[in-house]
Formats: sequence, C-alpha cells, structure tokens
Amino acid sequence: MAAPDTVVQISKKFAAFDEYWTPRIIGEINDMHLKAVKLKGEFVWHTHHETDEFFLVRSGSLTIRMRGRDDVVIGPDEFFIVPRGIEHCPVAVEECEVLLLEPAGLVNTGDATDSDRTAATDEWI
Amino acid sequence: MAAPDTVVQISKKFAAFDEYWTPRIIGEINDMHLKAVKLKGEFVWHTHHETDEFFLVRSGSLTIRMRGRDDVVIGPDEFFIVPRGIEHCPVAVEECEVLLLEPAGLVNTGDATDSDRTAATDEWI
Repeated sequence: MAAPDTVVQISKKFAAFDEYWTPRIIGEINDMHLKAVKLKGEFVWHTHHETDEFFLVRSGSLTIRMRGRDDVVIGPDEFFIVPRGIEHCPVAVEECEVLLLEPAGLVNTGDATDSDRTAATDEWI
Repeated sequence: MAAPDTVVQISKKFAAFDEYWTPRIIGEINDMHLKAVKLKGEFVWHTHHETDEFFLVRSGSLTIRMRGRDDVVIGPDEFFIVPRGIEHCPVAVEECEVLLLEPAGLVNTGDATDSDRTAATDEWI
C-alpha cells in the first residue's frame, strides 16, 4: 500500500518541523518508509541487525562513525548505506537534513533501546 | 547486503551516462535497488502487480499517466509513488533526471514484456 497518493514536495516536509532526531515518515514504498529527519549533535551507538540503513544528506554534513571501520562523511546530494549488523553512530556538528530509507517500524536506536533518543516509528508529516 | 560501501555523489552518477530509459543501479538497501535514470519522451503503459514504484525527480518534469486516475506532474525535488497494480505510463517532454526505488530485479516495463524499452535489471554505475 503506497502512500501518500499525491506528489510530495520534499522541501515542504522539512520546513514543517524543527525537532532533531525525530524521523517523520513522508512516503511508504512496499514495506519501506522514507523519512525526513533533522540531526544535530551526536546520536547513540547502535546496531540494526536485520536491515541496511540508507542516509541521503540534503543539507549540512553527516559523519557516520562505525565500529571497526573508518568514519564516512556524507555531504549534500550524497548518500551512504550502513550495512546491517554494523554498529554505528551518526554525528552532525551543525544542523543537517537527511532522508532515511528503512523498513517500516524500524526503531531509530536499533538495539540501544534504553536510549532517550528512541523516537516514534509511526509519525507521518 | 548493502552496496556500495562508499559515499555516493548522486550527481556524478547521473553525469556518467546519457542513454534514456535505461536505469542504472546506484545503491542496494536490503532487497531494494536505488536507480538513476534519464527519461525523455513517452514510455510504455505497464503495470507492476507486486510492487509500488517510487519516482523522485532531480531535474526536469515527469508526468505519470495512470489508468482511471488523474495524471500527476512531478517536478524537481518532488516524488510520487505509483501504487502496485496501477497501470501507468511515464512521459517527459524534455530530459528529466529521476531516482527510482524498486525491488531488485524489477523489470522496468512490468507486464509489458514485449516492449523494446525493456532494460537490463542488473546494470550498476
């Protein structure tokens, strides 16, 4: 079941909220959710054991630290896919706008379930 | 298995080919492929019975005609999701750059398998 059934202006979605680290669903493709999120600061180290995670940066710069691997730095109009099972920690020194693609219902903090950064998984905007 | 394992500059991927209607895979997220494609002209009417199809326009304007529904027009930085089972036909009067997201192995012409626009499903760039 695809949603929404209209054309979506991505910039309008980002303009509609301010909070950091709270992904909003903006599209559903099969069992995947496309989400808009604003990041600033350091997230929590966590792992998604069952899924890859897609980060596309729209503005700013996002560093992804990974256990046992070199950091990657993602700039505007660039993407990176964190493979399943790789412990990682996103860090944004300045505000950063990011599109995420991940399975519907995925918890943002993965196995770090006691984090105060754990967000709702069903919030559309 | 995510791929590639590096940061991808999307504009460089689009700069690396010229052919129309031949999607190139630029990323793999679980069983989904993110593809870059350039469109110009009218495609073929077809249906994907088993999957939604995601179109994100980067430049130009893409019209999607749908059987029994109003056309939609997707401009830069906008996306639209064609629900599974809806017969549709993409049309671009001028060259249009599009990101597609769809299951790995999906044939671009869906059930219109005798079309001369049917493209390879495994071409990375």
